[in-house]
Order: sequence, then structure tokens, then C-alpha cells
Amino acid sequence: MAETASPAWTATVLTLYPEMFPGPLGTSLAGRALEAGTWAMDVHNIREHAHDRHRTVDDTPAGGGPGMVMRADVLAEAIDAVADGPGPLVYLTPRGVPLSQGLVREMAAGPGVRFVCGRFEGLDERLFATRPGLEVSLGDFVLSGGEMAALTVMDACVRLLPGVMGADASGDEESFENGLLEYPHYTRPQEFNGMEIPAVLTSGHHEKVRAWRLAEAERITRERRPDLWAAYVARTAGARDVRPELDH
Amino acid sequence: MAETASPAWTATVLTLYPEMFPGPLGTSLAGRALEAGTWAMDVHNIREHAHDRHRTVDDTPAGGGPGMVMRADVLAEAIDAVADGPGPLVYLTPRGVPLSQGLVREMAAGPGVRFVCGRFEGLDERLFATRPGLEVSLGDFVLSGGEMAALTVMDACVRLLPGVMGADASGDEESFENGLLEYPHYTRPQEFNGMEIPAVLTSGHHEKVRAWRLAEAERITRERRPDLWAAYVARTAGARDVRPELDH
Repeated sequence: MAETASPAWTATVLTLYPEMFPGPLGTSLAGRALEAGTWAMDVHNIREHAHDRHRTVDDTPAGGGPGMVMRADVLAEAIDAVADGPGPLVYLTPRGVPLSQGLVREMAAGPGVRFVCGRFEGLDERLFATRPGLEVSLGDFVLSGGEMAALTVMDACVRLLPGVMGADASGDEESFENGLLEYPHYTRPQEFNGMEIPAVLTSGHHEKVRAWRLAEAERITRERRPDLWAAYVARTAGARDVRPELDH
Repeated sequence: MAETASPAWTATVLTLYPEMFPGPLGTSLAGRALEAGTWAMDVHNIREHAHDRHRTVDDTPAGGGPGMVMRADVLAEAIDAVADGPGPLVYLTPRGVPLSQGLVREMAAGPGVRFVCGRFEGLDERLFATRPGLEVSLGDFVLSGGEMAALTVMDACVRLLPGVMGADASGDEESFENGLLEYPHYTRPQEFNGMEIPAVLTSGHHEKVRAWRLAEAERITRERRPDLWAAYVARTAGARDVRPELDH
């Protein structure tokens, strides 16, 4: 556990596959932060709350159809067992609110998150009514279960915890904060496959570098993500009007 | 390797953290399919292509700023080493095209995917020009690197491979195929916390069940995802006009 003054940010996980955790988060920056007690993981096997001798957690869908549905009673008992755990209850499901960096920041700023990892066709609907929580989706695609989604949300949160990435995280943060995609990056060697680093970046002129990066981020966003671009234009309309030559 | 007649679907991975793979995909359905040779994993450490004695793969950004940038020359050599590998070259990056179930289906239908997992602030831009590939994003949030994104894409692809999930996958597929979020699921017990399974689902009337599920999927999509709902309405306008009472 944490040796810091305040309790560590804690990922509580309800899953049928506890062996998947911490998985990739046991290595690299997240793994070192886990060892250092910057964050903690509290993994519970939903199956321990099954009551029959076969430890059944699912059953066939009422009304028919393919697959199986996770039982409300078993999962409710598992959720109740972590009712006092730190942070909001989060269901990982494709019908949830799409994950955004704003939501990641909120989660990382709290004491932790209690993740419910669904499997099979889905969870019995009465869970959401009786154990309300935030339903979160990674995107409009289907995974084999909520585990990979939970790991991804954790990865996004952990890197924002104080001390995990240090100054390295702040750059990305600001980049997403302004609602634009990232500008192009370059580093040594100066020439690669006949292509030079753009001269402005090695000019030493900080203001020109900043203007070039903003213009490139705007161009890339406009070309690739009309949705982000429209929101950015609406939000920055005033500021952009007074910046005819990209000078600030 | 595969004992099937055709070569297994292969995830080729270029990463600085080979120990992250297969990670969570070594268990459950994906793990069994990996053991059975339904799919294969070919993981390469980018650092093996570094040339100096410190095995450097990154350097400071031209033009200044926080963090480090992955060098074009080292990563290009790693990419060239798997140039003959099966499937398209895919860069995992927040500025890529957002992952969708349609893209997952395309990837799963091919011979595999060659994933490039970025780290740090990003990759030297000259890579994209000289080693063209598809840039893919999980969503508008920032991860510690491309590894978790690659694992997520693999999870989505592997469950679609023939034999991995069988009939269970088809339901989800169709659910996303029509552009709607999932309808609510119910299973035993008949009563939970004072709530009954909706009577229509236990009526045995298949057509009414189907109509109820469609209406619920439409309601949930309309309430939660105006973007998906608008696209659905535009696409199904004709069909919906001839269905005044939800009968088909």
C-alpha cells in the first residue's frame, strides 16, 4: 500500500478474470507507480458471489437470443461488497458515455474508481436501476468483455497521477485541452530518407515555432476530424478573428 | 503455430515493451484461441534496432517542448524488418481515425495486422511519409503508449475470428451493425429487488419481443447518442415510414 500521506488512487475491479490484472499495467511507468504505492489495485472475482455449487454467474436471456446475460443478484452482491470502496461506480459497456480526456481527468482527480467488467451479451438491466453508476464506453466497437476497457481507462488515469509522468504528461494534456489533434513531431537525425526537419523548428525562434505548431495542429484537425474542428471553430471564433497573421 | 490449413490471423507488434503481450489476451477466449493456433502473435522489440551503445530510440523534440520523440531511423528499421508480415501497417495514435466496428471487421477479415506502438510525445513525422500506414485512435483520450490500444484492437478482432466465440459473437455484431446501442438484457431471477422481468420478454411472442427490443434500442440511442441517432434516422427513414405501429 501507499507510503504517502494520503491513500493511493485505487482501482477496484469486479471481474470474472482477476488474472488479467494488472496485466500490462504491471510494467513500465504504471507498474513502477503501482510498486511505489502511487496507486493501488483491489481486484474481486465476481464468481465468489455465486450461490450454487456450479458457481453460476450467468443465464440465458429472457425473450431468447444468442449468448448469456450476467445475473443481477450475483453481480449486485459483488457490487455491494465494495460499496464503501473509493470513487464512483463505473460500468464498462458499449452503450455508455464515450470516454473523453475530460472524463479521464475527473476520474484521476478523485480517490479512485470501482470498475464493473461485464462479459457475455451484457448485464441484467435491473442492476443499473438498483446499483446506479456511470456507464462508460471506449468507443463504437465490441470487445470480449469490460476488462480491456477497464485497463485502458486505468492507464489513462494513472499517467495523470502526481509523480507518474512528471512534466511529460503536461504537454499531451494541453494538446488535448485545446480540442485539437497533435501537431507533427520531429527529432534527430536532421535528415532522414532525404527529408529534412522543417527549418522553422531549428530556427530557435520560439514564437514562430509556436505559431507553426498551432497552424499544423489546426490543419490536421480540419483534415481528419470535422467534428473536433467544428467544435474548435465555434469555441475559438473570437480569438481567431483577432489573429489574422497567426501572431499573438 | 496454426495447425489449420490456412495461416493463422497474425498480430505483428512493434513495441518497446514486449512483455506487455499477450497480457490479458493470454487468458479467456482469446488465450485459448491463441493456444489453439486460431491466431498468432509476433512481437518485436523496437530497441533491438537502435545503433548506439545505449540503445537509444528517442531524442528531444526539434523546436523544443516537453517529452521525447521516437526517432524515425530506428523505428523505420524495425518497420522494414516486418515489411513482409501479414496485413496492413497500423500506427496507434490519438490523431488517427477513430476505431469503429466496421474497421475492426475489415482488420479481422484480413491475414492480420502489423501494429506500431508509439511512446513518449509521438513519432517523428517523417515515418508516416516514408512508411505509410493507417493511423488509428481508440478515442479522444491520452494513453501512456500504443500498447494498450493495440491490445484492445486485437481483442476486438480476435473475437470475430471463426471459431473463437461461435454464435455468441453474431448477436453483438448485428446489434452494432444497425447503428443502435444495445437493448436492455434480462435473465433469471424473475424478480430482483422488487423488479420483475418485463412481461413481454416472458410472453413467448417472438414478434413482440423483437419489436420491444428494437423500440428500446431506439429509445436508448436517441437519449444517449444524438450522433448515432441522427445517422440511424437518416439511413432508415424509408423503412421507418412504412412501420407506423412497429409491425414489420
